[in-house]
Amino acid sequence: MECYLDNSATTKPCEEAVAAAADAMTVHFGNPSSLHKNGLAAQQLLERSRKCIADSLRAEPGEIIFTPGGTAANNTAIFGAVSKHRGGKIVTSAMEHPSVEQCMLALEARGFTVVRLLPDKTGRITAEQIAEAVDEKTVLISLMAVNNEVGSVLPFSELGRIVRAKKSPALVHVDAVQGFLKLPIVPKKCGIDLLSVSAHKVHGAKGAGALYVRKGVHIKPYLLGGGQENGLCSGTQPMPAIAAFAAAVRAYGDGAAHLMRVRALRDRLLDRLTKLSGVQINSPADALPYILNISLRGVPAQVGVNALSERGVYVSAGSACSRGHRSAVLTAMGLPPEQVDTALRISLSRETTETEIDACASAVEDVLKTIGKKGT
Amino acid sequence: MECYLDNSATTKPCEEAVAAAADAMTVHFGNPSSLHKNGLAAQQLLERSRKCIADSLRAEPGEIIFTPGGTAANNTAIFGAVSKHRGGKIVTSAMEHPSVEQCMLALEARGFTVVRLLPDKTGRITAEQIAEAVDEKTVLISLMAVNNEVGSVLPFSELGRIVRAKKSPALVHVDAVQGFLKLPIVPKKCGIDLLSVSAHKVHGAKGAGALYVRKGVHIKPYLLGGGQENGLCSGTQPMPAIAAFAAAVRAYGDGAAHLMRVRALRDRLLDRLTKLSGVQINSPADALPYILNISLRGVPAQVGVNALSERGVYVSAGSACSRGHRSAVLTAMGLPPEQVDTALRISLSRETTETEIDACASAVEDVLKTIGKKGT
Repeated sequence: MECYLDNSATTKPCEEAVAAAADAMTVHFGNPSSLHKNGLAAQQLLERSRKCIADSLRAEPGEIIFTPGGTAANNTAIFGAVSKHRGGKIVTSAMEHPSVEQCMLALEARGFTVVRLLPDKTGRITAEQIAEAVDEKTVLISLMAVNNEVGSVLPFSELGRIVRAKKSPALVHVDAVQGFLKLPIVPKKCGIDLLSVSAHKVHGAKGAGALYVRKGVHIKPYLLGGGQENGLCSGTQPMPAIAAFAAAVRAYGDGAAHLMRVRALRDRLLDRLTKLSGVQINSPADALPYILNISLRGVPAQVGVNALSERGVYVSAGSACSRGHRSAVLTAMGLPPEQVDTALRISLSRETTETEIDACASAVEDVLKTIGKKGT
Repeated sequence: MECYLDNSATTKPCEEAVAAAADAMTVHFGNPSSLHKNGLAAQQLLERSRKCIADSLRAEPGEIIFTPGGTAANNTAIFGAVSKHRGGKIVTSAMEHPSVEQCMLALEARGFTVVRLLPDKTGRITAEQIAEAVDEKTVLISLMAVNNEVGSVLPFSELGRIVRAKKSPALVHVDAVQGFLKLPIVPKKCGIDLLSVSAHKVHGAKGAGALYVRKGVHIKPYLLGGGQENGLCSGTQPMPAIAAFAAAVRAYGDGAAHLMRVRALRDRLLDRLTKLSGVQINSPADALPYILNISLRGVPAQVGVNALSERGVYVSAGSACSRGHRSAVLTAMGLPPEQVDTALRISLSRETTETEIDACASAVEDVLKTIGKKGT
């Protein structure tokens, strides 16, 4: 039996997404920028897809630009937001995805001051911490909605209120790649100016993402060229992945119902794991239940991933995107090195079953017995 | 009957590409950065795809990075190549694709000097022109292999020789999006350091491209994040489009044989069109025969595109990527405004048939009769 529990790295595309991608390669294969009938059909598919993503965020279609993925959305948002400044303060967290953190390092080299808020030992950051850091010199706040390694939910919904209270001119960017559809996110209600999402985390295909750009917010484009996507993301649109993205969002179902079911599964897993000696829980109790981060005493993370993989259980050591490096997230949380180096991320989806959860728990137990050096 | 003759905007994905994309969304859906069995299977698919693209350019797999498309490849090449300089001379042409020209405008704003070589009246640029412009202060040469609007073949194979002869430190970038597989291109033989290609121009899917980066050449990444693609193009790889790209390249067939057949088709079309009063030929006689640019006297380009579209014949007014703007390419060629504003691009593929060519010629004849104001 195979248990795919690495859904925060990528999800399996749903049937609807696969069918939509195939349609975009066969029937609707035109270039949406072409002005003949074949191109217009592709353009209509593009605009239907845009409306679908907009609806899911209760935004206007004109506020959605498609990007090649979450990374391109984050790069476009961050570099685009600060392009008119030659320096200034940026507030972010010390536990962002590399596609945010690497942009921050580049901006520091250009003279910006980056304040990275530290999470507590379970990966939480408070609205008070953010309010304390934001001031009238802050040009950008960039915060993730849900941490990708431990699942902590950050106070993204407070950001607009904070910016207003502090009379800050800052633009507000939220990397919502891990929270999209799993949590209700309405950027307009939260005072969010820019919000990144990705298709392949919600059963779409790899190769498409989107950036919400609030009406009235002006950013400079990052990928330059033919001026597609309202000038903000040039390049022929990745139509198969865009159509699959929209199909996956349409087919996603009731996010609140999925959340309840996934929480019950996560609790079932927690119940089994906390009974094992040698398991430490790194995720906070109020984490988004799609992600559970644990450490296995005496089992180096890569050894754990391999041992579980041999047992048909697929999980990550940290995030897929920080392959081979010590987790910056768990380090920022102040966990001791031995706990960081033995950390595994188990990530669920709406497709996850009780059978898979039980198989995972049994495999972890077996790995601990076989490999874990108890008491070390 | 429908005649799709806009293959320089995008081609119809071949069956093999569609099947490969479906496989990457169902069987091989893992994240290639994940280290369990499911991720490793995706990684192997990624590396097999890389080898396939490398083989098509007679390059090493380690010299190929996947990108979201041709535009991202051009942005990565150009910004990456000049990142260590704070200014200097860049030699390019006045007829590049917007994804090159827009980067040039951005670099001019940063203090670089951009020399844009002017084509002759048929879109040709000579090796002598390039040699005259390149000197020891030149940091980058960026030239397209084949012009996307008129099909002229630029002297890309001479660039290495020129750089050596002029003892120039310039890196050599070639945007080979329109020439890839249609012409034999071996970057190593031509002294090319960086070369961009795109999947959807060769019957792959929209959403993948590649950048050849010659071994030993160091550029800075443009899309920042998890460090995928040897650190040069971050973001989870668009696996469906990448697998489709490789499948399309494998299925492409004999480029030289296709070229001969397409040349015969283009000549058949030329033969019909040159007999019509009111047709002007804008492409050079030695153009890559996949592209034929013509002007229809008295028929504004958009009117021509629509009229042909109504007759089931799909062509472009200029390139798809410069939608709605007067062609910069034809303007640079020094054509009079009335010839520029009535220009159509007819672009063929290896799938084009004699029947389509004849239908296109008849439709053009009909449009000229119906709409063209003869003698104006």
